[in-house]
Amino acid sequence: MNRIKIGIVGYGDRGQHLMEKLRRSSHYVVTAVCDIDIRKLKNIPSEITEYSLPDKVFADEDVDVVFIAANNSAHKELAVRAAEAGKDIICATPAALSLDDLNEMLAAVDECGVNFTVYHRHRLDKGFQIMQNVRDSDKLGQIYLIKSSMNMAVGYLQDWHRFASEGGGVLMDLGVTMLDQMMCLMPGAKVTGVYADLRSVVNKEVDDYCRIILQFEGGISAEIELGTLLLSDKEDKWFEHHWYAAGTKGCVYVDGNEEIEGKLVLASEWLTDRKRTVSDHSSVRERMYTEELPEAGESEYFFENYWKAYDGQEEFQVTTAEILRVQKIVEAVRMSAATNTVVKPN
Amino acid sequence: MNRIKIGIVGYGDRGQHLMEKLRRSSHYVVTAVCDIDIRKLKNIPSEITEYSLPDKVFADEDVDVVFIAANNSAHKELAVRAAEAGKDIICATPAALSLDDLNEMLAAVDECGVNFTVYHRHRLDKGFQIMQNVRDSDKLGQIYLIKSSMNMAVGYLQDWHRFASEGGGVLMDLGVTMLDQMMCLMPGAKVTGVYADLRSVVNKEVDDYCRIILQFEGGISAEIELGTLLLSDKEDKWFEHHWYAAGTKGCVYVDGNEEIEGKLVLASEWLTDRKRTVSDHSSVRERMYTEELPEAGESEYFFENYWKAYDGQEEFQVTTAEILRVQKIVEAVRMSAATNTVVKPN
Repeated sequence: MNRIKIGIVGYGDRGQHLMEKLRRSSHYVVTAVCDIDIRKLKNIPSEITEYSLPDKVFADEDVDVVFIAANNSAHKELAVRAAEAGKDIICATPAALSLDDLNEMLAAVDECGVNFTVYHRHRLDKGFQIMQNVRDSDKLGQIYLIKSSMNMAVGYLQDWHRFASEGGGVLMDLGVTMLDQMMCLMPGAKVTGVYADLRSVVNKEVDDYCRIILQFEGGISAEIELGTLLLSDKEDKWFEHHWYAAGTKGCVYVDGNEEIEGKLVLASEWLTDRKRTVSDHSSVRERMYTEELPEAGESEYFFENYWKAYDGQEEFQVTTAEILRVQKIVEAVRMSAATNTVVKPN
Repeated sequence: MNRIKIGIVGYGDRGQHLMEKLRRSSHYVVTAVCDIDIRKLKNIPSEITEYSLPDKVFADEDVDVVFIAANNSAHKELAVRAAEAGKDIICATPAALSLDDLNEMLAAVDECGVNFTVYHRHRLDKGFQIMQNVRDSDKLGQIYLIKSSMNMAVGYLQDWHRFASEGGGVLMDLGVTMLDQMMCLMPGAKVTGVYADLRSVVNKEVDDYCRIILQFEGGISAEIELGTLLLSDKEDKWFEHHWYAAGTKGCVYVDGNEEIEGKLVLASEWLTDRKRTVSDHSSVRERMYTEELPEAGESEYFFENYWKAYDGQEEFQVTTAEILRVQKIVEAVRMSAATNTVVKPN
């Protein structure tokens, strides 16, 4: 199979990250790159065509797949135009700002008969992959609680993520990817209720604190917390991703991004029918034991999969159904936060 | 003023704790003690009358104030009978199992013209008092988030707290006192919504995991999490009380029961209008500074206050309005957990 020819649209942090990733792969070749701000097109290898207008990429016959890495608010229009030009599409997260936008994009994709998927790069996160393995291992027994939390830096939202007009805010940034991870941990499970808090605390234009509780059919409660304002001097890992889950056999914590710290902490005995007082930590520790976390998977799998799926050898890892599912949760999150009610997603 | 003569009804852990506390005070004298299980009446000093029937305490002329320290499910009946016998009443937490029960108790108290208050011993907690001082100091700016969490030991619920018939479970145990603390941090603030999760995970008869989110008028979101099942090998303090709060100027964490660890972590600058990338921890740390926590108050204040209030010198620290307020939240918690909706307390 030939290498897939990629045109990157949007050359900010995301576009640059992709360029680096794709140029290291033997399955892909970046043939075109585009940014409306041409000052961003720096150090582009000479064999790659530079454009300032996305439509030029869509018209370029030397591009098979358009990678949309532009500002969030541009995704819809770019995807529709790319589809109309007959290009296959990979879109950065979030796919769209709203369910209406996403439906419009999917209709165009469908009508034009092109492929569409979303690059959920955080599915490659070590901590998340470990959590998937923990879930599969059944080590925790029946899980009833999962927490995923991230604290970013002193109010900081990168670049245009500060602006409402560009589709900024924490929900549209890491929030969507954390939702996607959580939904992946519960394949097929129905969300019966969403309760969310979205705040604009120091960034008045966009949300900079977000807490989402998802109640799943069958009784799992999942919590996502994401802030740019939650400070601590406790440990470097504070500003990284934290997972915690609890089940009928014990708990797990998984902290960090690259360097993971964590343990399975299991109960050798729950003290449910004891009469005597247990107030000291040693009595607790006697009834707990720890196990090492399972290993994470292969972190480049998205691009490996895309290459195979493009050839029809397997399904795209991120399916339309999954993209829609997350988008419906996003709508419920906004509705819940606006009304202070529990919202059942469509 | 004479010493107040106390009759303790219920001589389990709570009654014994009180006996110790009151006998160290120069303002009180314990004159009677009662437990329906007379085997519990051990090492009682000879000058204290022992009873197995509460009505004997209520009839004892040498008792001014009855301290109800019996199982939760007995509080209502004992309080009504004590009031009818003309005794003043201090009740252990929770005041009552339901709002109906509490209203019945308060009606009897009112009709019989006796004093009634609740011994919220956790108002004396160091961590809580520090949080009150942090709130008063305005160090955090406008607070939007407060969290209070406690993890007890490997499924353990003490003694009769395992039994539904006795009014057991974590909500009726420490849950009520954590709610009282949270409400004290927000005097006068109206709760606009309660969202709660109550689980019976390994203790099938009663709740052993509880998460409550209180939305206050004015935008503060308060979270209480209480479990007997959340395990970790990270630190001894895991099983103690944790407070965290965030505001427009920074955050605070307060961990522990007796030995408190914590800091105010404040932002010297929020990065809300920066263009450049901040991804390393050092850039974050440069914009944070810490301050020591304020001191806690006087930990024996409840009994000092009761003695003065009994003499009419000041108001009882725990007022009927506060007791009712917490009870109404408890009703909303149960309703929310049962219906998976946000409930507005009455």
